[in-house]
Amino acid sequence: MATRIPITVAHGDGIGPEIMAATLHILEAAKAPLDIETIEIGEKVYLAGNTSGIEPSAWESLRRTKVFLKAPITTPQGGGYKSLNVTVRKVLGLYANVRPCVSYHPFIETKHPNMDVVIVRENEEDLYAGIEHRQTNQVVQCLKLISRPGSEKIVRYAFEYARRNDRKKVTCFTKDNIMKLTDGLFHKVFNEIAASYPDIENEHWIVDIGAAKLADTPNAFDVVVMPNLYGDVLSDVAAQIAGSVGLAGSANIGEHVAMFEAIHGSAPRRAGQNLANPSGLLLGAVMMLVHIGLTDTAEQVHNGWLRTIEDGIHTYDIYDEKVSKQKVGTKEFADAVIQRLGQRPQILKAVAYKKMDSQSAGASVSSTPASRKELVGVDVFLDWTKGGANDLGGDVSKLSGDGLKLTMISNRGVKVWPGGHAETFCSDHWRCRFLPEAEGKTVGHGQVIALLNRVAGAGYDFIKTENLYTFDGERGFSLDQGE
Amino acid sequence: MATRIPITVAHGDGIGPEIMAATLHILEAAKAPLDIETIEIGEKVYLAGNTSGIEPSAWESLRRTKVFLKAPITTPQGGGYKSLNVTVRKVLGLYANVRPCVSYHPFIETKHPNMDVVIVRENEEDLYAGIEHRQTNQVVQCLKLISRPGSEKIVRYAFEYARRNDRKKVTCFTKDNIMKLTDGLFHKVFNEIAASYPDIENEHWIVDIGAAKLADTPNAFDVVVMPNLYGDVLSDVAAQIAGSVGLAGSANIGEHVAMFEAIHGSAPRRAGQNLANPSGLLLGAVMMLVHIGLTDTAEQVHNGWLRTIEDGIHTYDIYDEKVSKQKVGTKEFADAVIQRLGQRPQILKAVAYKKMDSQSAGASVSSTPASRKELVGVDVFLDWTKGGANDLGGDVSKLSGDGLKLTMISNRGVKVWPGGHAETFCSDHWRCRFLPEAEGKTVGHGQVIALLNRVAGAGYDFIKTENLYTFDGERGFSLDQGE
Repeated sequence: MATRIPITVAHGDGIGPEIMAATLHILEAAKAPLDIETIEIGEKVYLAGNTSGIEPSAWESLRRTKVFLKAPITTPQGGGYKSLNVTVRKVLGLYANVRPCVSYHPFIETKHPNMDVVIVRENEEDLYAGIEHRQTNQVVQCLKLISRPGSEKIVRYAFEYARRNDRKKVTCFTKDNIMKLTDGLFHKVFNEIAASYPDIENEHWIVDIGAAKLADTPNAFDVVVMPNLYGDVLSDVAAQIAGSVGLAGSANIGEHVAMFEAIHGSAPRRAGQNLANPSGLLLGAVMMLVHIGLTDTAEQVHNGWLRTIEDGIHTYDIYDEKVSKQKVGTKEFADAVIQRLGQRPQILKAVAYKKMDSQSAGASVSSTPASRKELVGVDVFLDWTKGGANDLGGDVSKLSGDGLKLTMISNRGVKVWPGGHAETFCSDHWRCRFLPEAEGKTVGHGQVIALLNRVAGAGYDFIKTENLYTFDGERGFSLDQGE
Repeated sequence: MATRIPITVAHGDGIGPEIMAATLHILEAAKAPLDIETIEIGEKVYLAGNTSGIEPSAWESLRRTKVFLKAPITTPQGGGYKSLNVTVRKVLGLYANVRPCVSYHPFIETKHPNMDVVIVRENEEDLYAGIEHRQTNQVVQCLKLISRPGSEKIVRYAFEYARRNDRKKVTCFTKDNIMKLTDGLFHKVFNEIAASYPDIENEHWIVDIGAAKLADTPNAFDVVVMPNLYGDVLSDVAAQIAGSVGLAGSANIGEHVAMFEAIHGSAPRRAGQNLANPSGLLLGAVMMLVHIGLTDTAEQVHNGWLRTIEDGIHTYDIYDEKVSKQKVGTKEFADAVIQRLGQRPQILKAVAYKKMDSQSAGASVSSTPASRKELVGVDVFLDWTKGGANDLGGDVSKLSGDGLKLTMISNRGVKVWPGGHAETFCSDHWRCRFLPEAEGKTVGHGQVIALLNRVAGAGYDFIKTENLYTFDGERGFSLDQGE
């Protein structure tokens, strides 16, 4: 008998325990050689005073098994409770969120009968780093961070996923016509990595047009890789229009640990009634089986599930008298899948999973080429309400000196000095750009500090700074509208 | 005879001149009392060396008439040409982008027969301020800015629009479960302003779930107001699934000037062949007529156009032999609309526009209550690659002093010191948070500058700073995952 593979299981809240029991029942019947460690997460842990919803001992189990099958949990209402999913993702570096969005026409209602799209979402950075500052009365800021290693990891994962799963094309969505540096980096990395997968087609869409196409004609896409925010919104769109929100599983993949779950929530009002559909968690478990190399078992379970769906054995949430044959509860649905282990669907497309040496490939990061980095100026941001742009420009100009000169003031990204337009609405959040007095010169940190001293000495509330650098002579900062 | 109303018209590039001619022909036939000033924008102006695509004299016309009917333009390929639309929006403060997304079932193919949603998109701020900095080898940043006056203007506009157009509900989309300060401000302002429109229903959706609902069941929505990025993506989604990208007009509304256009591009390959569909620009012109108070003419043109569509008189782009009766060119389509001026649609819903004293209401901004603002610390960001988080924590701790103490280091928003997790992937972009040594104390700008001096003196490359403030005692900055 094969060695048993250790995994960590959390039964969760609401309908969690029921759908997890059904899922584990099916895995057991399929003879998956699993060695299960159970941990407690969610509501009870929160209410016991642990604001992250997970005990230290649970982290130890996750680090030991490196595989986490997680039922949905309930985060209590009210202040201070942190999202467990966000904590687990960030702490364990689960950089890839993988969400297959498949329609099961004619058995599940959808306007998109032939949909089979996999959204691969970057999961760690972008605006979800959650770094926010309010520094003036009127304006609040959030930092969008995109890194080269973060982009490399997710893009390479998407191509590896495509290759492993016989997918033909990887599409990238960004908004790099506006965000030339951040989304531009993601797109550039996509192009670099795509070049080493000549067997897989690649393409890029601006996210607005791409999203419109995805929502209207999803079968134009195969695998789509995106930065975090676009992926968050569009993976929900894709799952919804496939008609399969209640049926979809997802994987969160890291270099060390991976987590598998249903995409739906804990639905407390349905709990304890043997009503809930275990399909989402079960399909998450199928992704787990593939991940740990149990591809035969994964295939058997997935195909048995497809056969159950097309045999019209449906839980209440997908029951439709036009196509369903039998309305069943959670347990009976699991039994129906177990009866069909070894069978294949007749109408829906059967799945086939390839055995691979490593299912967690794709995490390697190329060493970033060291660039020649030079400091060439600084943006000093002021909270100021005492007049118009020309007043500020005149006064702050006087702080030029020591090799640094005020060249531009902008407000919410619009240049307002010199030569602004009277119609431009100005908030209390002003950016003053200082560049070297002599063109082509570099600047030292001491000059930036001395400038801040002059700014503070003149009574200004400087609220933040952004240094301006060049990398190998190339400008590492945007120019403003009108600059 | 009524006083003529001056407007500025640009004929644009590609199919622009043809669809503008058709549109103006219809407006003339409808006896719209317009006094037209023509300006040159787009390709010719770009190629003449003006990187913004618009001449100084054109600005003067826009400022004089305050109303701009604009045909699509072509931005030449290659470096240095700036988006004319972005320039006009930002310089003239066109804060509201209004895009009705309507389906015309059964005459235009759509999966969403009863769709009638208006997307009101904030148009000036958010990530589209375009403020980007690369400050380390690995990491690039873009600032997302949300302001209280910016949020007030757009939300109030959405409610005023709803009231003027007999709309029943305004929905707000944000991601304030993650971006609690920025999107939280937008949501808070929405709630405040909604309270003064008791006649209009209001609701808020998290943008991912809201987008999924919008893409699947758009008739659940009426008017939807959103920050810039979400609005950019979801207005394209909504127009696409309505089936009406080629038929949709949009308005860009400012306090001083407003611009009206089709949402499609200049389609150079279709140019000069009398093929293009003028409907998008015509419906943009209808929004313009409403804006300048010519509601009777607007109604007459819009209803005549609806009648033309349902009479099956269609240009090539929407011609479908199942429903179309006659395939016509641009000019013949305009003639068909003119023949139907004064008629109303029989199957599609006729429009009715209310006369209002001011169509540009909604721009007023409440004076922000002055808060007691106190400086309570600073985040200093370092570019550093010489070791792990504990090395950095130990060394930077030594720079504490003069009332400021290192309390936390994070990397891409994850706390890594003190007490980080070994699995957390660290980039070269580190944030060091300094707070007062004694709790409850405030800090002076001089202390921040002195700290930067110690940081630079110890050989660190500080790349940016973010001051930490409280407002009326409330924390104006986010805590980190794990903090």
